[in-house]
Amino acid sequence: MEDTICAISTAISKSGIGIVRLSGREAFELGKKHFKSKTNSNIENRKLMYGNFYDNDENLIDEVLISFIRGPKSYTTEDMVEVYSHGSIVSVKKILESFLHSGARMAERGEFTKRAFLNGRIDLTKAEAVLDLINSETEIEHRSALNQLEGSVTREIGKILDDLTDLNVLMEASINFSEDDEIEPDKSSLIKKTEEVLDEIEILIESHKRGKIIKNGIKTIIIGKPNVGKSSLLNNFLNENRAIVTDIPGTTRDVIEEFLDVDGLSVKIVDTAGIRLTEDLVEKIGVEKSLDLSKNADLIIAIFDGSKELEKEDYMILDHIRDKEKIIVVNKTDLDLKINLEEIEKRTGSKPIFASMSERKGIKEILDSISSLFFSGKIEEMDDLVITSSRQENLLKKAYFSLKNVLKGLEDNIFLDLIDVDLKIATDSIAEILGRNFEKEDVLDQIFKKFCIGK
Amino acid sequence: MEDTICAISTAISKSGIGIVRLSGREAFELGKKHFKSKTNSNIENRKLMYGNFYDNDENLIDEVLISFIRGPKSYTTEDMVEVYSHGSIVSVKKILESFLHSGARMAERGEFTKRAFLNGRIDLTKAEAVLDLINSETEIEHRSALNQLEGSVTREIGKILDDLTDLNVLMEASINFSEDDEIEPDKSSLIKKTEEVLDEIEILIESHKRGKIIKNGIKTIIIGKPNVGKSSLLNNFLNENRAIVTDIPGTTRDVIEEFLDVDGLSVKIVDTAGIRLTEDLVEKIGVEKSLDLSKNADLIIAIFDGSKELEKEDYMILDHIRDKEKIIVVNKTDLDLKINLEEIEKRTGSKPIFASMSERKGIKEILDSISSLFFSGKIEEMDDLVITSSRQENLLKKAYFSLKNVLKGLEDNIFLDLIDVDLKIATDSIAEILGRNFEKEDVLDQIFKKFCIGK
Repeated sequence: MEDTICAISTAISKSGIGIVRLSGREAFELGKKHFKSKTNSNIENRKLMYGNFYDNDENLIDEVLISFIRGPKSYTTEDMVEVYSHGSIVSVKKILESFLHSGARMAERGEFTKRAFLNGRIDLTKAEAVLDLINSETEIEHRSALNQLEGSVTREIGKILDDLTDLNVLMEASINFSEDDEIEPDKSSLIKKTEEVLDEIEILIESHKRGKIIKNGIKTIIIGKPNVGKSSLLNNFLNENRAIVTDIPGTTRDVIEEFLDVDGLSVKIVDTAGIRLTEDLVEKIGVEKSLDLSKNADLIIAIFDGSKELEKEDYMILDHIRDKEKIIVVNKTDLDLKINLEEIEKRTGSKPIFASMSERKGIKEILDSISSLFFSGKIEEMDDLVITSSRQENLLKKAYFSLKNVLKGLEDNIFLDLIDVDLKIATDSIAEILGRNFEKEDVLDQIFKKFCIGK
Repeated sequence: MEDTICAISTAISKSGIGIVRLSGREAFELGKKHFKSKTNSNIENRKLMYGNFYDNDENLIDEVLISFIRGPKSYTTEDMVEVYSHGSIVSVKKILESFLHSGARMAERGEFTKRAFLNGRIDLTKAEAVLDLINSETEIEHRSALNQLEGSVTREIGKILDDLTDLNVLMEASINFSEDDEIEPDKSSLIKKTEEVLDEIEILIESHKRGKIIKNGIKTIIIGKPNVGKSSLLNNFLNENRAIVTDIPGTTRDVIEEFLDVDGLSVKIVDTAGIRLTEDLVEKIGVEKSLDLSKNADLIIAIFDGSKELEKEDYMILDHIRDKEKIIVVNKTDLDLKINLEEIEKRTGSKPIFASMSERKGIKEILDSISSLFFSGKIEEMDDLVITSSRQENLLKKAYFSLKNVLKGLEDNIFLDLIDVDLKIATDSIAEILGRNFEKEDVLDQIFKKFCIGK
């Protein structure tokens, strides 16, 4: 077992219960040193005991529950101790200090999870899933992280790794065959197998587009001419009670984002000029500026005034959004419709949603169409595997391109020994997703530094 | 057992571990309904089990540890279940929702502790101590609350209650004696016993002055003529690294307070004109205004310019602080001393501390003298019993005045039957401190509404 690490594992704020955790060689010893049972209980594995916690000068620090969890059946696989105190900032700090004073080391961010990985209990995709789970803010983010924690990525990557091993066996056989007999071996089965694996990897790479959206939300921009109802739309969204978080406190940015939780999906609407601050201003934003801002958006909501005929700027918008993810809204349906609906459909290939911001009509339809556009509106479908980690995506891409070389080599009749090098790179990249044979300390640091302390 | 209550007991913020708690009749049933062991373990009392938590539609919510704690040996004395999940906001909320959906009721603030009280595990002083412990911000606050949780108030109040019972027995005997024999009974033993109890109560009432300071901090004001170094003193204090918390966020007040943690004691310095905001302004505050502000202070730090002779305003200050808790600082000792030290001592009865704000000298001495002024500088002495609760103090005062009436009645030879009424009031008031025979629901509400949810 490693040296003994210690951290506060609950959020440090006045609350009902606080937890301080130990893991490592001396965890049990330190736990026993500072704890005295009130009921003369003996230590039993995983059993909550009630008693007093004392500091190094034998001052009482708090009445606590404590549990001793014998490795390897623990979070880190090491011996662990958890102290459950009153959720007093002074209590948890003093408990932590006592352990540090007795020789424990302050845990680094994510170090408990890192140990679970290094000790082989979880692979790297599951470690990443722990982080995503803790950071999740919507149901879909949470579910996606949970699936990965349960091994969805592990299984799929494991399968690809098996296939690559099979491919390797075939390759070795062909190499030996060609050496022995100096006859060109039949490469069709090699090619077929390589193409299969490429397909499997491609599906995962493709899934990262959805994965990014799950993790980062749908970056959405509302565009339209002045006074078509952009700010009313945003305000109606925010009033629909689906808002989860308001502005991130303490940030000052040119571009403010409003967050909506649409069926568990995080929709981040770029509030181009701080609608909530200055309702007038946003309506004055020029169409060209809006179009420019929309370049990096995942979704454009284009809004038109239904009571007027289409004008030059409207046509600009229609042409701009043609090939993008979009929702078209025709507003002001409480007035006489004068807009040319056929033209909208012709130019964009999409049917608009009719709405009246002043009468609060059509809002739900717009939100529903966002969720169906990205996830068919069903959270259950999120159980499909999606890659949310860009580290994983990068390694998948690396494997994909190496395997493409393998395929090209096979088709071009390159020496199999040369092709074998690319196959090796592809296999190593896939194995690296799981963190196998892993020696890249800096990569681990990158992953675990995003964790909170105490996990 | 009562109905089943449920709450999130950790601070709701992204963190390592989150806890959701159940207590009541159906706690075990609900726990079993939503949890499935991963190791096919049977439920054992107080044993941490590892497994999955499912919502009411059997969707996986999180991998968790769970413990079933059989009453009456639990926090509330009822059956309890604690679920330890990842510290994900979505996880803890969904676990809570699942239990609520299955019939648990959302716990009110402090309801777990309230049940511990109503079920007789702790008295009301210990319940109040739990709240103080959680809210404590300095070591002394923490220690004082912990002593009370350990029963320091319980024991002392219990002793007073015993003495009152003894007094009552004496009184009854005297009443019977006087009825039987129509002879004036000897009241000296009654008077002696009453005086003893009055002394005991008085000590506790007196201790509340320190108790208030422990709980609310030492309200301190720095006074002095313009440009004697008031703002430098405060800035030096804040730089001394003893500051615990800065301004309370979101509060806008005329009077800003700066917090220092001096040897575990919370010192709140009234920043009369926002020194940190406007260094100039504070120096311009007139002496009269300062003296006015100092009326409610627990401590006055009076600062004088040592390089000048005492002036009219200095004399005003010296006369004002004569009978107050004070620390006198002679600043600018880097320059030639011209101040009349004898006059300072003569007018106030105190020796000044020499300091040079520009050279950062004397700061530690001033802070040390604050802590010795209030607590002899030793945290250990805090183990003396102090009453920190104003509810308790009010009841002690009520008992004290009733008992004073008893004493007066005895001295004035009032009928013992009449005196007995006051003795009853005194006894009831003391018993009410512990929450005995308690039917005042509104008083309980007052106490527990200050708790966080989940405790």
